[in-house]
Amino acid sequence: MATLGDIGVSAAINILSAFIFFVVFAILRLQPFNDRVYFPKWYLKGLRTDPTASGAVSKFVNLDYRSYLRFLNWMPDALRMPEPELIDHAGLDSAVYLRIYLIGVKIFVPIAFLVWAILVPVNFTNSTLELASKIANVTSSDIDKFSISNVPLGSQRFWGHVLVAYAITFWACYVLLKEYETVAFMRLQFLASEKRRPNQFTVLVRNVPPDPDESVSELVEHFFLVNHPNHYLTHQVVYNANKLAKLVKKKKKMQNWLVYYNNKYSRDPSKRPFMKTGFLGLWGNRVDAIDHHMSEIAKLSKEIAAERDKVANDPKSIMPAAFVSFKTRWGAAVCAQTQQSRDPTIWLTDWAPEPRDVYWENLAIPYVSLTVRKLIIGVAFFFLTFFFMIPIAFVQSLASLEGIEKAAPFLKPVVEKNFIKSVIQGFLPGIVLKLFLIFLPTILMIMSKFEGFISLSSLERRSASRYYLFNFVNVFLGSIITGSAFEQLDSFIHQSASEIPKTIGVAIPMKATFFITYIMVDGWAGIAGEILMLKPLIIYHLKNFFLVKTEKDREEAMDPGSLGFNTGEPRIQFYFLLGFVYATVTPAILPFIIIFFGLAYVVFRHQIINVYNQEYESAAAFWPDVHGRILTALVISQVLLLGLLSTKEASHSTPFLIALPVLTIWFHMFCKGRYESAFVKYPLQEAMMKDTLERAREPSINLKGYLQSSYIHPVFKACKDDEDEEENGENWENESVIVPTKRQSRRNTPVPSRVSGASSPSLPEAIQEHPKPEKDGIVN
Amino acid sequence: MATLGDIGVSAAINILSAFIFFVVFAILRLQPFNDRVYFPKWYLKGLRTDPTASGAVSKFVNLDYRSYLRFLNWMPDALRMPEPELIDHAGLDSAVYLRIYLIGVKIFVPIAFLVWAILVPVNFTNSTLELASKIANVTSSDIDKFSISNVPLGSQRFWGHVLVAYAITFWACYVLLKEYETVAFMRLQFLASEKRRPNQFTVLVRNVPPDPDESVSELVEHFFLVNHPNHYLTHQVVYNANKLAKLVKKKKKMQNWLVYYNNKYSRDPSKRPFMKTGFLGLWGNRVDAIDHHMSEIAKLSKEIAAERDKVANDPKSIMPAAFVSFKTRWGAAVCAQTQQSRDPTIWLTDWAPEPRDVYWENLAIPYVSLTVRKLIIGVAFFFLTFFFMIPIAFVQSLASLEGIEKAAPFLKPVVEKNFIKSVIQGFLPGIVLKLFLIFLPTILMIMSKFEGFISLSSLERRSASRYYLFNFVNVFLGSIITGSAFEQLDSFIHQSASEIPKTIGVAIPMKATFFITYIMVDGWAGIAGEILMLKPLIIYHLKNFFLVKTEKDREEAMDPGSLGFNTGEPRIQFYFLLGFVYATVTPAILPFIIIFFGLAYVVFRHQIINVYNQEYESAAAFWPDVHGRILTALVISQVLLLGLLSTKEASHSTPFLIALPVLTIWFHMFCKGRYESAFVKYPLQEAMMKDTLERAREPSINLKGYLQSSYIHPVFKACKDDEDEEENGENWENESVIVPTKRQSRRNTPVPSRVSGASSPSLPEAIQEHPKPEKDGIVN
Repeated sequence: MATLGDIGVSAAINILSAFIFFVVFAILRLQPFNDRVYFPKWYLKGLRTDPTASGAVSKFVNLDYRSYLRFLNWMPDALRMPEPELIDHAGLDSAVYLRIYLIGVKIFVPIAFLVWAILVPVNFTNSTLELASKIANVTSSDIDKFSISNVPLGSQRFWGHVLVAYAITFWACYVLLKEYETVAFMRLQFLASEKRRPNQFTVLVRNVPPDPDESVSELVEHFFLVNHPNHYLTHQVVYNANKLAKLVKKKKKMQNWLVYYNNKYSRDPSKRPFMKTGFLGLWGNRVDAIDHHMSEIAKLSKEIAAERDKVANDPKSIMPAAFVSFKTRWGAAVCAQTQQSRDPTIWLTDWAPEPRDVYWENLAIPYVSLTVRKLIIGVAFFFLTFFFMIPIAFVQSLASLEGIEKAAPFLKPVVEKNFIKSVIQGFLPGIVLKLFLIFLPTILMIMSKFEGFISLSSLERRSASRYYLFNFVNVFLGSIITGSAFEQLDSFIHQSASEIPKTIGVAIPMKATFFITYIMVDGWAGIAGEILMLKPLIIYHLKNFFLVKTEKDREEAMDPGSLGFNTGEPRIQFYFLLGFVYATVTPAILPFIIIFFGLAYVVFRHQIINVYNQEYESAAAFWPDVHGRILTALVISQVLLLGLLSTKEASHSTPFLIALPVLTIWFHMFCKGRYESAFVKYPLQEAMMKDTLERAREPSINLKGYLQSSYIHPVFKACKDDEDEEENGENWENESVIVPTKRQSRRNTPVPSRVSGASSPSLPEAIQEHPKPEKDGIVN
Repeated sequence: MATLGDIGVSAAINILSAFIFFVVFAILRLQPFNDRVYFPKWYLKGLRTDPTASGAVSKFVNLDYRSYLRFLNWMPDALRMPEPELIDHAGLDSAVYLRIYLIGVKIFVPIAFLVWAILVPVNFTNSTLELASKIANVTSSDIDKFSISNVPLGSQRFWGHVLVAYAITFWACYVLLKEYETVAFMRLQFLASEKRRPNQFTVLVRNVPPDPDESVSELVEHFFLVNHPNHYLTHQVVYNANKLAKLVKKKKKMQNWLVYYNNKYSRDPSKRPFMKTGFLGLWGNRVDAIDHHMSEIAKLSKEIAAERDKVANDPKSIMPAAFVSFKTRWGAAVCAQTQQSRDPTIWLTDWAPEPRDVYWENLAIPYVSLTVRKLIIGVAFFFLTFFFMIPIAFVQSLASLEGIEKAAPFLKPVVEKNFIKSVIQGFLPGIVLKLFLIFLPTILMIMSKFEGFISLSSLERRSASRYYLFNFVNVFLGSIITGSAFEQLDSFIHQSASEIPKTIGVAIPMKATFFITYIMVDGWAGIAGEILMLKPLIIYHLKNFFLVKTEKDREEAMDPGSLGFNTGEPRIQFYFLLGFVYATVTPAILPFIIIFFGLAYVVFRHQIINVYNQEYESAAAFWPDVHGRILTALVISQVLLLGLLSTKEASHSTPFLIALPVLTIWFHMFCKGRYESAFVKYPLQEAMMKDTLERAREPSINLKGYLQSSYIHPVFKACKDDEDEEENGENWENESVIVPTKRQSRRNTPVPSRVSGASSPSLPEAIQEHPKPEKDGIVN
């Protein structure tokens, strides 16, 4: 068990490394040639130009010594921007994301004062651990003296812990309630004040049923003309351009290499660059690199043209899905939030994600396949979660002091030195954990993609909740149970429902020091490292050196990155969990957590303002998840405290804890009913209000023109710039002129068309209004 | 433990009593003076007239001996009516309800053949129990020889049970899938072919926010004119007429007594009837009964008039709720299935229940109160469920043979007699259980009412699921654990998740005989007793004798009753549970269950055709609940089998059972996604289709006139017949003429009205269309 000294060493190391990171960052960011790495957001917004270009400062190194003196200046700068401006600057998602850190501060600062004022004296004035160490030679760290372990069995002092648990719950719920209210209000405000955007008018319809007589495009048009006669405006079918996108990507890469070799050649014109065609350039025929790439590119261009032709003309490349746009937000809101057909597996409508948020690959997955995919991923995730534990436990046991001595006895003299011993005990377990977790988000993201979500935001949200679950089982439970008793794991499954919290609860106080070092490594040094942007920095300079020729290339070489909700949020949640669980057990952990929340808030506020470029804007749609997970952490902490106390023979006070989880769960249900709808539904009143205002302000807007090309697959948009565009352009237009109906037989005509054919009186006008709905396909 | 002989006695008794019930029924139903008790449905439909009136048969007693010979004739009669006709005759709810029994037959008949072909030989050809009885003097009934108890520990024969469990699951899921599909189709067909009904056009809006400037009626009209401009037609506000309804009911009762005393007086004019005014007529002043009632009725009439006046003129008696009707089904479908306001606790819209299905008392419960009520009822139901167990266990232990001998030793010589002993062991436990359960539905119904549901159908559905849960915990688990080891209950809570199924699983085979007797008492004799309609029979004849003067009175004296979904369905479900649990354990129980399902099907089909008068028509909205509960029973049976087998040391075969619950739960999710929406959503395509057809058929229908008075509180409808009607009629009309707006200040005008005032271009037409929306209140 780590002593106070070990923690001191670890703290010193981590504070030092955080400090070094900050200093390095301060130096690097002031260098003009790094400007695009540390301020890409401003470049993307067009608000900042290259300082090297303006000539105001030296080209590469900033020699103005005064700017180095104020090396922590960015912190107040980051805090200065007011929230409304931040929303305007970086979007609501980012602004609300920052609020999660603030909630951490809001919840845990008062709680820290409370527990240090009440529980620390209550715990510290006992001498249980002192006695135990005298009698049974049990060693205990000094931190444990502040913890619940120091209170004797059956003591009346546990009343204090029960009362504090109530206080914590009520305070946390109060903060969460206020916050939910605020965020819901912010979201509605944001949506109401948003400018006109295609996704406000557009609905994604999937699983269009096959029809022998009509193409997907005709079928969609007829269906919506019949069933939403006063509101339907236009639609765009979805093309299966996955292969085309792959080819275009490959061509892009080839072009990069061509530029690289050209640059190389122009620097040293005496030597023509050569390369091998085999794997990674290690073997194969030796060819002239420039010629080879030029021929490859030409080949790819041809392939791309052929593929585009195929996508355009082959009806099989049209997916049974379409983006349907309406004349009013009201019409879109109605269509998105209702069921269209009596068969709930066809004509599935939902709000279209923002164009940049669409995950195109998944648009054509049929309904039945979706449920099967869900089952497969469910089972796979179960195995991932519960079998990942074994390697972690194995490596961690190796990485402990005793493990190292056992595995490599020759290292014994080295590791027994006091300093190295402290390092190993303070650092290694955290680092092992961290390494294991690096590849996880990718795996989880692949799982979510396989499951069939159609927008990046929902992919990230799903991955985040999986990540949280994984973290809870493997990092939290794994660390608690493995370290103290990995052997218990097997028997764990066979334990009773009331035994499990006990087993975990008992182990919790013992693991406090481990989690303190974890917080310092991951939460302090890790966050400080985040601001350095090491990976983007290196990549930018490599690209800059090898590939950049024009200003536009330089633009593309920037990699601002984004918040990464799928990894970032579960990480924060883990601190909430630790905070709640240890608040009553080992109050000493709270200051560490508060420092994490504060530091992370400043760092990420800076990053959001200056660096990150958001990939999409979901208007804080993730908040119900965040709220739910914080409450989950709260309930877990209550159950574990219950388990812990029930081993302390405090039978008077413990039963009073049972009401807490019930109340908390009820609180969750209450919040769900009261606020969740703001995140999942779009009230008709709002839609009508925006429609009416818009109609009053711009009575003559050409909405159809505005919406027509907004949901084009990005690969077609990218083609715009290419030179081989015109010839295909016509193709598109020819393809998609729609004839009102070209059904051959009336006998097997399904219902919608029959209605559209004759009996709906409102239909003729609707058709008249779009006498020739041309260009409803993909039009550039 | 009951022996085969005991079961024989019990079976004989129950078969005999069922037979007697049928014979008595056959005799009673042929008597003309019982005609209205046994064929009320036909009277209500106007398809049958009093046989006594037509003079074709004798007035009271049927003397035609031939009709007695065919005393079981009603059975084929009941089965003869084809399903489409049944739906037409009794509604979809009843027809689908009968299908539940049919599912029981469909599932369990093949299963019974399977287990009798495979498991019974597998079990019977062992001699474990024989050996045990020889060695340890353990007595076992003969039925146990067919059961899993007879297979030795660790035998490879358990593979048979595992395989059969798989077969049962697949067969049950297959039947359920087909059935879900059929019922969903039937529902959609039913809804599509239904005639025009007010609830197709009407939405119930609740929690209309208070407004200082406008009345509820004006506010509702403005809100919907603004937000559904092309679809809004008219609305009816809801009056708080609970007190009025109570007064009217009291008056009705008084009038009944008056008739009674008048009849009494006219029979014996020499003696004027007297009564006492105190409690139940037991004490108080002695007064002339006729005069007293007449003065009371006069007083009540005045009170009613005053109260009606108050309801009409006092704005406080208008509840913040309204029935809003639309011009098209499409408009109503949109409004019912979307959120209106950004605050999800106001302007709550939902489909209006059928007028006869509305539970008027709950229409004005505010949102916040609803969540608190839910919490209260949740906790109350928990206590009801888990503390109800104690009295049952106590009484059951008293009612056992040993209990009786202990409590009343003097009875020992009596109960030790073989026949009485058999009766006690076969009958008593079931009867005790039954007695306890008589009052339960009322309690559960009160709970649901308190929770705030607004339609009778949802009240019944909620009560049914509570009842099922209660049955499971108290009757099923209670009987299994109590009888064998009530002491285990306390330790039960402290048992592990994997121990609990074991504990229950082990006890299951021992309880087979108890459940067999339970099935015979409740399922055979009970069902046969149902057809006798004893309570309605007695009440009808009492009323007929004392109160009936006119033909209309006789009409009212009929009490056809209804299916009683809240008690009937959980009762069927209990048999599904027993069937699944015992299919692999004690196959001998299956024939008893199959007889129950078959008998109940015939009896209830007869009752539905001839007797029950449905209170509402929900178009089989209960089916997802039914489906879900059958699957729950299946999962429970799988888990319990897993628990049982894991005590049998069959470690090769048992683990193969783990996949079963996972697959079953996934199947449930699949069905939910595939079919549930047919029961909770109304697709726009269907709505549009019906609208279009109707517009084509009846272009000039006055929908407003049709809808205007459909959602009037029944107490006002009842008043129509009263003489003191006209004077109030005018009041109503005066009250509800609407002036477009009478807001005083523009400053604190909320948004909807501002929009309606000026900027919505579509509004003027909409208002023009209803230039004077008079009569939107309650109009008689």
